[in-house]
Amino acid sequence: MGKGMKVVVIGAVAAGPKVASKIIRQMPDAEVTCVEKGRFLSYAGCGLPYYVSGVVEDQAELMSTPVGVVRDPVFFRNVKNVHVLEQTEAVSIDRSGKKVYAKDIRTGNEISLDYDKLVLATGASPFIPPIEGTKLKNVFTLHGVDDAEGIKAMLAEHKARDAVIIGGGLIGVEITESLVHTGCRVTMVEMMPQILTMLDWEMAKLVEQHMEAKGVKVLTSTKVEKVDGKSGVVEAVRTSNGKICTDMVIMAVGVRPNTKLAKDAGLELGVGGTIKVNQKMQTTDPDIYAAGDCVEMENLITKDKCYVPLGSTANKQGRVAANNISGRKDSFPGILGSAVCKVFDFCVARTGLSEEQAANAGFDVETVLSPSPDKAHFMPEAKMLMLKLVADKKSGRLLGLQAIGPGAGDKRVDAAAAAISAGMTMEQISNLDLCYAPPFSPAMDNLITAANVMRNKLEGDMEGISPRELKDKMDSGEDLFLLDVRSEGEFNEVRIPGAVNIPLGMLRKRLDEVPEDKNTQIVVFCKISLRGYEAGLILENAGWKDIKVLDGGVVMWPFEKITP
Amino acid sequence: MGKGMKVVVIGAVAAGPKVASKIIRQMPDAEVTCVEKGRFLSYAGCGLPYYVSGVVEDQAELMSTPVGVVRDPVFFRNVKNVHVLEQTEAVSIDRSGKKVYAKDIRTGNEISLDYDKLVLATGASPFIPPIEGTKLKNVFTLHGVDDAEGIKAMLAEHKARDAVIIGGGLIGVEITESLVHTGCRVTMVEMMPQILTMLDWEMAKLVEQHMEAKGVKVLTSTKVEKVDGKSGVVEAVRTSNGKICTDMVIMAVGVRPNTKLAKDAGLELGVGGTIKVNQKMQTTDPDIYAAGDCVEMENLITKDKCYVPLGSTANKQGRVAANNISGRKDSFPGILGSAVCKVFDFCVARTGLSEEQAANAGFDVETVLSPSPDKAHFMPEAKMLMLKLVADKKSGRLLGLQAIGPGAGDKRVDAAAAAISAGMTMEQISNLDLCYAPPFSPAMDNLITAANVMRNKLEGDMEGISPRELKDKMDSGEDLFLLDVRSEGEFNEVRIPGAVNIPLGMLRKRLDEVPEDKNTQIVVFCKISLRGYEAGLILENAGWKDIKVLDGGVVMWPFEKITP
Repeated sequence: MGKGMKVVVIGAVAAGPKVASKIIRQMPDAEVTCVEKGRFLSYAGCGLPYYVSGVVEDQAELMSTPVGVVRDPVFFRNVKNVHVLEQTEAVSIDRSGKKVYAKDIRTGNEISLDYDKLVLATGASPFIPPIEGTKLKNVFTLHGVDDAEGIKAMLAEHKARDAVIIGGGLIGVEITESLVHTGCRVTMVEMMPQILTMLDWEMAKLVEQHMEAKGVKVLTSTKVEKVDGKSGVVEAVRTSNGKICTDMVIMAVGVRPNTKLAKDAGLELGVGGTIKVNQKMQTTDPDIYAAGDCVEMENLITKDKCYVPLGSTANKQGRVAANNISGRKDSFPGILGSAVCKVFDFCVARTGLSEEQAANAGFDVETVLSPSPDKAHFMPEAKMLMLKLVADKKSGRLLGLQAIGPGAGDKRVDAAAAAISAGMTMEQISNLDLCYAPPFSPAMDNLITAANVMRNKLEGDMEGISPRELKDKMDSGEDLFLLDVRSEGEFNEVRIPGAVNIPLGMLRKRLDEVPEDKNTQIVVFCKISLRGYEAGLILENAGWKDIKVLDGGVVMWPFEKITP
Repeated sequence: MGKGMKVVVIGAVAAGPKVASKIIRQMPDAEVTCVEKGRFLSYAGCGLPYYVSGVVEDQAELMSTPVGVVRDPVFFRNVKNVHVLEQTEAVSIDRSGKKVYAKDIRTGNEISLDYDKLVLATGASPFIPPIEGTKLKNVFTLHGVDDAEGIKAMLAEHKARDAVIIGGGLIGVEITESLVHTGCRVTMVEMMPQILTMLDWEMAKLVEQHMEAKGVKVLTSTKVEKVDGKSGVVEAVRTSNGKICTDMVIMAVGVRPNTKLAKDAGLELGVGGTIKVNQKMQTTDPDIYAAGDCVEMENLITKDKCYVPLGSTANKQGRVAANNISGRKDSFPGILGSAVCKVFDFCVARTGLSEEQAANAGFDVETVLSPSPDKAHFMPEAKMLMLKLVADKKSGRLLGLQAIGPGAGDKRVDAAAAAISAGMTMEQISNLDLCYAPPFSPAMDNLITAANVMRNKLEGDMEGISPRELKDKMDSGEDLFLLDVRSEGEFNEVRIPGAVNIPLGMLRKRLDEVPEDKNTQIVVFCKISLRGYEAGLILENAGWKDIKVLDGGVVMWPFEKITP
């Protein structure tokens, strides 16, 4: 099969090498050529922050196989039988003549390559915000190996240094941790009211608090106006919140798909200038496929077109494209926007729709904030894990999960991703047979507990109030009785302003301390709000009528707390 | 609702307290009484091995809420409004009169309790093998808090000590680790040819090897004949493999459901003497429910009745029973036999059907052994994770996953449990949007890589050979060419007996070292068999006809290896 089929792949970083290798495995007689603009092949771009921090010691590890073989053109030729033209830029596509024109960047030589099937794996480029000063020395992006080397060289040169990260997305957060690791004082500047917009506001606030606890200054709702320099070197960043003196700036405001080639060739483009593809990863020209950070994707829940460039998706799409080119049927169904990142001691993970996304998509949304230890609570290695579940009220289906904290959030997000893909309801999730032993999870896994709390809410057993709603009520001076049912010791450590303490075990006997008026607005809570829920039931049975349980308890309160 | 409904719950360890608390939450006017034979309520039996080892320091932690409140009768009364009769044994049920007769163990007083609904949460008891000597001093089971205290007291008394564990199941393995942790020399004796029969043979062998590397002697296919004592104290264990001198014996040969009450009351029993229940957790008497370690369950894949007592299942069933008693509709669908345990540095986890179970259930089975790092391989914290995937050839559906190794197997097993529950195929699993970042997973998650290898197999792209099949061929003296394509350095460290080494990168140039006869049986492999797969393709293209890839490579070879 594929006798002599000529396949040209443009791009040899993530999706490209995957497509090429897979095609040649299935059609050993095919002639597969990869054209790569850069000097580096098949490298793990996602690993760059860890190379900058020194966690990954050698650049070569990022472009090696798991057993340490460097994936260079010799490797591709000898092992994969794929011909790689490195430092060669594809400049145009002649669709009718089925030719790709390219130029060797080192020699300037022009070449042309015939193709039967063409694959565009052109990736993305960092977006440079349209402000003054982005070309000054020590202003970086972090996209390729050269960027990482530049940052490392700068760090090696200057001992004490301040750094400003422009943009609070995934890459911004990862490089922040890397720079703190190397001893930098970091300020993060984000235009939106929160960092990590893949999370809902209150979850992002908890991540910001964790970053600030680690010495990072996080400025949200802050617009960068200009980067100042002196003698061509960056000196300060001017923002809507004032001037920040700095030795270094890293711009991490997202990427844009590289689609000039596709556009010039007349292929249809999609959301955000991406290349439009069908589920076979075929562009509007049936002989041209595309995969990876340059293509449009579909959200599996909303069916909306979107753009979420990730290495994991690129690899899957590469495989699908290769299968179809090799004459097999395969399709890439779409994405859930699953993502995870390490933020100091926190794992920050999410899948599906956030509350905001779900509401925007027209769902009647219910949410749950559920913090609890990620392992049996009596195990010393148990760590706090804070979950936010988003469900569709009507169907009871899970729409999204956000997980933050030192606990194993990635594990719950992966189980949830499978559950969402299958359209599972809360009832189904609450009976999932997840594996249990004390060193790995609580007897009721965190995901199952959160699903049960959601069922309680959907069935009307408990009325919750989100931290933000409560804060709005507090700020507007509404008459509220805030009842904290934790122990006295816990209450004396840290508390929410204005709360009154009656430990749960004493509540039945101390009901006289609750305002007599049975119509009083009461908000009950504890550390994680399980005791709060019990307290609510006790008050309800004692006749009070307006009781709400604070979602997520004191642990997930994203506003100021009092430390007496 | 439930005005004055009288509910009696027999058993207050796992399912019992769950049922009681949940009912009272939903029906505050109900009268709920728990009758518990033992002194300890609502304790985490699964935590006992960690209490024995000292990882959990205080017994009270096992019976506390996550915030450290001990769940004693006072707690149940004040917080939950549940009346608990501890050290009270239910002796009979009068179904027509709707009464439970019980006896206070301390006083001998007899009491009777009226019920509208009765819940049997009577749990299970350790099985004592019918051999001589099990009543000797220092012969233990590990089921309740008293057992753990007995073992701890014995350990505190004697400094140097040998221990024999009879039974290589989950509890046997967990207590082995605990005892090694306290300084014991442990011998495990298992009657079957492998420990952990929830795993397939070759996976269990890898766990045995890990235990032996930690100093545990594992004797499989070994029958215990008698426990010898001197002056009433255990001295040795006589087995079909000889006599083992020992200071202590722990019998961990499984548990049996406590169903005498149910049987005497004429309720229908199921598999292994369990109480038969429907999906509402209702016994054959509609006013009597049962949940936890005493009931029959259904396997979600085969629909066969089975008995897999676990704390996680007990909690879920308790909730379902409570909902139905409270007049709500709820059902417990069944189990996948998901389980996990910590075995020294290994996480050992599984869900669904093993190869053997799947074959016995009549499936046309295909399997994959897939070892790889559990995080991006360039991250220093990446650890080896060895997966075994079991699929149905006909439908391509995932039937089971086994995960062992230092890597995060529980995470992949939980995602697989959700996928199996949803009936997902390999194609669906290979496109799951699992979350990715280098500190948490490889770009292609281990589960996805394994699913892709399975797709290659199911589509006929590669022919695998299991370690056991290969060993049989080797032992029977078949003419084989064993080609190890790892690097020379790897080959010199450790190898499979009889293998020839040609590193993958040189294979195209060194084909003359492969036997000329194109019909030679060739088995190719590397460390994890990805390079082995590439090598197979190279040989196939060069004309060899009988090439198989060794599943799991050198890493998952469960037989003797040579260390030159």
